[in-house]
Amino acid sequence: MSGLPDGLMDAFWDYERALMADDLEAMDRLFAPGSQTLRGDADGLVVGHDAIAAFRRTRVAPPPRTIVETHVQAVDDDHALVVAVTAPAKGGRGQQTQLWRRGPTGWQVTAAHVAIPAPPLDGRVWRVVGDPLLPGGPGPLSGESVAVKDLYAVAGHRVGAGNPTWLAEAAVETDHADAVARLLAAGAAVRGISRTDELAYSLAGTNAHHGTAPNPAAPGRIPGGSSSGSAAAVALGHASIGLGTDTGGSIRVPASYQGLWGLRTTHDAVPRAGLLPLAPSFDTVGWFARTPDLLARVGDVLLPPAAADPTTGSDLVVVPALLELADPDVREAVRAYADDRGALVEDWPLDDLADWRIAFTQWQAWEAWRAHGDWLRERLDCLGADVRGRFRMAAGISAEVADGARAVGLAARARIRDLVADRVLVLPSASSVAPLLGSDLAAVREATLRLTCLAGLAGLPGLNVPLTTADGLPAGACLVAAAGRDRDLLEIGRRG
Amino acid sequence: MSGLPDGLMDAFWDYERALMADDLEAMDRLFAPGSQTLRGDADGLVVGHDAIAAFRRTRVAPPPRTIVETHVQAVDDDHALVVAVTAPAKGGRGQQTQLWRRGPTGWQVTAAHVAIPAPPLDGRVWRVVGDPLLPGGPGPLSGESVAVKDLYAVAGHRVGAGNPTWLAEAAVETDHADAVARLLAAGAAVRGISRTDELAYSLAGTNAHHGTAPNPAAPGRIPGGSSSGSAAAVALGHASIGLGTDTGGSIRVPASYQGLWGLRTTHDAVPRAGLLPLAPSFDTVGWFARTPDLLARVGDVLLPPAAADPTTGSDLVVVPALLELADPDVREAVRAYADDRGALVEDWPLDDLADWRIAFTQWQAWEAWRAHGDWLRERLDCLGADVRGRFRMAAGISAEVADGARAVGLAARARIRDLVADRVLVLPSASSVAPLLGSDLAAVREATLRLTCLAGLAGLPGLNVPLTTADGLPAGACLVAAAGRDRDLLEIGRRG
Repeated sequence: MSGLPDGLMDAFWDYERALMADDLEAMDRLFAPGSQTLRGDADGLVVGHDAIAAFRRTRVAPPPRTIVETHVQAVDDDHALVVAVTAPAKGGRGQQTQLWRRGPTGWQVTAAHVAIPAPPLDGRVWRVVGDPLLPGGPGPLSGESVAVKDLYAVAGHRVGAGNPTWLAEAAVETDHADAVARLLAAGAAVRGISRTDELAYSLAGTNAHHGTAPNPAAPGRIPGGSSSGSAAAVALGHASIGLGTDTGGSIRVPASYQGLWGLRTTHDAVPRAGLLPLAPSFDTVGWFARTPDLLARVGDVLLPPAAADPTTGSDLVVVPALLELADPDVREAVRAYADDRGALVEDWPLDDLADWRIAFTQWQAWEAWRAHGDWLRERLDCLGADVRGRFRMAAGISAEVADGARAVGLAARARIRDLVADRVLVLPSASSVAPLLGSDLAAVREATLRLTCLAGLAGLPGLNVPLTTADGLPAGACLVAAAGRDRDLLEIGRRG
Repeated sequence: MSGLPDGLMDAFWDYERALMADDLEAMDRLFAPGSQTLRGDADGLVVGHDAIAAFRRTRVAPPPRTIVETHVQAVDDDHALVVAVTAPAKGGRGQQTQLWRRGPTGWQVTAAHVAIPAPPLDGRVWRVVGDPLLPGGPGPLSGESVAVKDLYAVAGHRVGAGNPTWLAEAAVETDHADAVARLLAAGAAVRGISRTDELAYSLAGTNAHHGTAPNPAAPGRIPGGSSSGSAAAVALGHASIGLGTDTGGSIRVPASYQGLWGLRTTHDAVPRAGLLPLAPSFDTVGWFARTPDLLARVGDVLLPPAAADPTTGSDLVVVPALLELADPDVREAVRAYADDRGALVEDWPLDDLADWRIAFTQWQAWEAWRAHGDWLRERLDCLGADVRGRFRMAAGISAEVADGARAVGLAARARIRDLVADRVLVLPSASSVAPLLGSDLAAVREATLRLTCLAGLAGLPGLNVPLTTADGLPAGACLVAAAGRDRDLLEIGRRG
């Protein structure tokens, strides 16, 4: 056909004006109704008119742009593709490809593919990134690149801890944190310094200042935290190793949400020199990788040598009461993993689990306020609402409450270590798949902590084995073993 | 309609297999012939079957990926949109939107929009980038961000000079270069360290190690260099100020190719402390911005105070013999700029211009080898072919040839300064628009140097005023005035 279909370009420009005015109702009207309508950008494809409408309500208003070229391919009087080259006011070029269809109410978009110029770096994932930031060299990790969570010292840089005020007041580090130095000495390059939830006091990855890191394995869902940037960097292929920390789940939860392999190490197994503390009784070094082989090779560099007389049992054990703490889709995926590997099913006496979770939260909070209260006392307002609320709670923990929590926690530690013994406990890494952006996360946090607090209280290593739910979403089985058996867990992961 | 059109998905998978095999002929066959076929990605939209086929022959083979979702919107039996979500093996998610049409030879793509996960940073533009790399503060440039050409010292980082071997052997800088320190003191943040042609010895921006920076104002064309990363960073909106250098055109040429404002300063007007030299008799500090206002505000920070008794003439003068050195499209754009502003037309005695260009090249080469010969003598192989050839030539310049070149150059300097006097010379910033990727650049370099060597030899400031050719491509008028009149040029630019 020749010429443009009637009214097509009027509709195109109506949409452009609506976009620039952030007129959500007009944009909704100009997108075709129904479940087949598509809208994709660098963060993923959204399917269905209503999901697209909901997405528009979570994003910031589009930045100003002009249309510098349009190309129309008309299929017939009622269908046409319009490809536009866009020029954002701040620079670069973008592209928008739309399939338009004329229906009873006029022209509407049935599919849109939007590309805007990529920023110099994704500030949700990175604070600083280089090509590389610090070079690697010869060694067992030669060719690998590390995303360093912004809690570890990197010489020549400040530690930002996910908070702009902290960063502004921080001194430039003169030495690398121990874990960073070991990775560099093993030949890995440092790709950059990756984002964290503020002071690592969150499991969500929804930093109030720097935005929510993407979850490429589950678009539209939170990435998990607090090691959110390191996890996203690995999931996005920006780095092969994500160095993080795990106090109450900050490796296990994002690994589970994003389909990554992740190890939380035995407490005190890997030195924490040069690492900003959250709760030193629970803080551990951990890392992510896309393969169990690389996860294990990092362990060869960071973990102490295997004990001379190791605990070597490799029986898997699964506890129905712990599976019940997860949503059905996650529970089934973890159960299938355990069943496939012939895990023993045991009923553990876990009546105290709710008390243990509370004890963990209080003990952690007490230590967090000891670590940061002096600095935060006059600066609580610099924190995002979620983490601020948690530190406010922490400030209110009395010494008596902390003593009681510690007593319960120490009893739990002994009990959990006894129960695990020389076996490998299989439990859900998190209570759910990654929640949708905009969900209420308080209940999710509590439900997940009931699971993650076990290894936390007991100081045990935990390996996230990535699984997939029946719906195709990432989930994770957490393998927990006796203190010091980190290498055994990595080997189980490697064997598959 | 319901169901999928016959053969559509077979064609879709044929294309996917051809892409993964980098089977160029099969991809060409599966794209519709003709001038209306479209193929766009983050580097721009390519229009027409043959241009797309040519583009495929300049790119590297696509990395391995799998298709994780497909959505088909069938318009009729012979037209359908296929939207695919892709999962590159190294991580992240991409999207591909294709309009397919069934013609006499089967299904073919008439339009494709391809998005792959953005890398953590664009290594063609940046070596290191931060959010920010170094914070700004209060001051006249507060809120602005600087891309620092990888020839300037940034404390805590090495200088890479566009060459990996140089970078590997470089020491970490302990102090900022003078220009960097002044910009920081004025409140600007440092966004990052941007790519340069190797040792700044090129006008192309086609670094052999780090790739050719994009030219968002002219997709498919070279960006110009050697300040290629700083220019692209500003053109892409990654930074508002691009700090570069200009020895023989390294500000003026990329500014002209990319539609940016750019200033090459009077030789020695801005201190070069902390800046790696190329040819100290010609090296100058320069910068880019997207507006003449910001370009001038940077001048307020970096330039010395205006002279007490300034040369104040503002007559523009244009010299037909210089316009003739540019391609017709550029010539017409510059002539129109000059005519619109009532420039005087003068015939200058420029019979020696060819000799001046040779003298500039030889003098520059002599100094470049004095600056870098000791290091390069055993390392010429570490350079890309283009820059290596230039340094080989430089190594062969005898002291006698250099003396002769210097004599010619000094005479030219006096002559050019006399001719410019208290006027403002308007000439083309480069002899052509940005050449297409893959062009033979040797002739372009020579033609452009005939123009740019004038300000180079004379040590005069040059302002690139961005223009547009009749075809819509960026070009530039270069305004040259007496030594020290940098601020006057900036003011002329600001007045428009």
